[in-house]
Amino acid sequence: MSTPTVISIDGMGGDHAPEIIVRGIAMARERHPLIKFLIFGDEALLKPLVALEAILSDCCEIRHCPDRITGDAKPSQAIRTGRNSSLWKSIEAVKAGEAAAIVSAGNTGALMAMSKLIMRTLPGIDRPAICALFPTMRGETAMLDLGANAQCDARNLLEFAVMGECFARALLGIERPTIGLLNIGSEDLKGTDTLKEAAGILKSSHLDIEFHGFVEGDDITKGTVDVVVTDGFTGNVSLKTAEGTAKLFSQFLKNAIKSSFLAQIGMLLAKPVIMQVMARTDPRKYNGALFVGLNGVAVKSHGGTDGFGFANAVGVAYDMIARDLNRRIGQELERIGSTTAALQAVASK
Amino acid sequence: MSTPTVISIDGMGGDHAPEIIVRGIAMARERHPLIKFLIFGDEALLKPLVALEAILSDCCEIRHCPDRITGDAKPSQAIRTGRNSSLWKSIEAVKAGEAAAIVSAGNTGALMAMSKLIMRTLPGIDRPAICALFPTMRGETAMLDLGANAQCDARNLLEFAVMGECFARALLGIERPTIGLLNIGSEDLKGTDTLKEAAGILKSSHLDIEFHGFVEGDDITKGTVDVVVTDGFTGNVSLKTAEGTAKLFSQFLKNAIKSSFLAQIGMLLAKPVIMQVMARTDPRKYNGALFVGLNGVAVKSHGGTDGFGFANAVGVAYDMIARDLNRRIGQELERIGSTTAALQAVASK
Repeated sequence: MSTPTVISIDGMGGDHAPEIIVRGIAMARERHPLIKFLIFGDEALLKPLVALEAILSDCCEIRHCPDRITGDAKPSQAIRTGRNSSLWKSIEAVKAGEAAAIVSAGNTGALMAMSKLIMRTLPGIDRPAICALFPTMRGETAMLDLGANAQCDARNLLEFAVMGECFARALLGIERPTIGLLNIGSEDLKGTDTLKEAAGILKSSHLDIEFHGFVEGDDITKGTVDVVVTDGFTGNVSLKTAEGTAKLFSQFLKNAIKSSFLAQIGMLLAKPVIMQVMARTDPRKYNGALFVGLNGVAVKSHGGTDGFGFANAVGVAYDMIARDLNRRIGQELERIGSTTAALQAVASK
Repeated sequence: MSTPTVISIDGMGGDHAPEIIVRGIAMARERHPLIKFLIFGDEALLKPLVALEAILSDCCEIRHCPDRITGDAKPSQAIRTGRNSSLWKSIEAVKAGEAAAIVSAGNTGALMAMSKLIMRTLPGIDRPAICALFPTMRGETAMLDLGANAQCDARNLLEFAVMGECFARALLGIERPTIGLLNIGSEDLKGTDTLKEAAGILKSSHLDIEFHGFVEGDDITKGTVDVVVTDGFTGNVSLKTAEGTAKLFSQFLKNAIKSSFLAQIGMLLAKPVIMQVMARTDPRKYNGALFVGLNGVAVKSHGGTDGFGFANAVGVAYDMIARDLNRRIGQELERIGSTTAALQAVASK
């Protein structure tokens, strides 16, 4: 395993680019000494930042791009006018075989639209989804879609179920991952017509999938199922609600400790385990969402993350490549392909 | 203020009824010595439970009802066949003026459907919503709808904005509460067509409302706005995700402390402030959601709560009555009534 893994980086994407991007890849390189980076963006800005990180001196090539995609750009507009942007060029490097994956903290919609256009989707997949892991009482649960598709029909949800199942099998090593559809009640009669339709098909199908049924918002962290399937609107709100709640909890804890001298003494003793809990629920640790369903590896980092968070997103891309995940997902999709096609035919009318 | 407040209780609703219901009202009575209870349900079950609670001996009347509405009953079916149920009878007691509010931990859909049928809605309100407070970095934020209406159009969202504004003004004492529409991005181009339509009307309107614009999932706990408006599907998933995340955090903390002797010693010193944080984020503390928009006070408790949680839901009902909240909401709605009607006309076509 001495071949280096080249990862393509959108140097200009996100709220704190390019500073935290360069800091993040330096941290990622510390963890994975075999990574090399192709970083795209404004050379005049990137060069001095890279020069500050000694560890990047022999593993980082800067490719100058004059343009950047802003966070508020419409995906359609980004595609039309962004061919010289750092985002476009960094995705193209994967398509061209120069890099094995692309990581960006930039505009989610533009990353998705450009990735679909340049990389194309896996055979049988209409809509790629954003998939990531959540910490749970029982370990980790995969959830998708976290924001790629605001409105979904039953067919989209079925595709997500199939992809999520493959993802959990490959990444979490679970032989028969259980799948749950996120709803506002576990009873069959609850929720929207789209959800009822999707559940009906998943239940009655010959798909070789462990369909658990409907799950609710608190089932995510309970770890009731291995894969939680939902539309991108609900998934995104749920993800951000969870992040916000974790931050609130840490903040309350910090404030409370500051307010008491005895607690401060106590915390000196308890610090190692408190730090352990903070680390375990740190949203930055879970930063890095896979765009699953693409014919290539694209990882989206949170736009507002710091260097530590961005390094974790690079780590997700690295893991995807190391575990040859996309090829395994492709094989899984091929294996159940005929059934999926049949299901989609049912779902589409 | 020596007049007793009578609260009507659905004695048979929820996962652990009637045990935790009776425990809960006993705890509520300890906090509010002026409450009296009318409790509806199976007398043979309720009588011995009430007899165990000395504090209830002179403030609790049991009314026997042979039927109960199960958690999986469809609202339409509950209305047709549930006229002798504890839920129906407990709502009727409010309509009849025997009680000032009803509290139930039972079937949410049935409680909403029956309440609408028996109490009717406030003038100008088409769809009542479920509204509750969330703890935030800045204090508390009201959020609605938390699950009454799975699918909402722009008109529904406008009604929620108007009601949420009144709720925050009266309950949180904020002169000009800020309103945010929950979305998957704060930019104008994000989200569904329904959200864009609702935002457009709220922005361009002459409604005397501080419309902040779109907010995201993590803005809820940040306290970015005083009122978060969303459809009942998203609101319910978000609420339950937040509850699940808070539980996960506490569980991780407990496990970590157990694993280290030093941490256990430290925790003895820090215990008071840790307990304070736990109490501040305890979902049971926030148990009790108001069905806002009804011509009467109906409070829904979590179905799976315990006595402590149910007592808090009774406390919410008590506060609503003490602050004469519904009359104030009615006045507010009347004040902005003509504008609302105009908006609804716009929204409905």
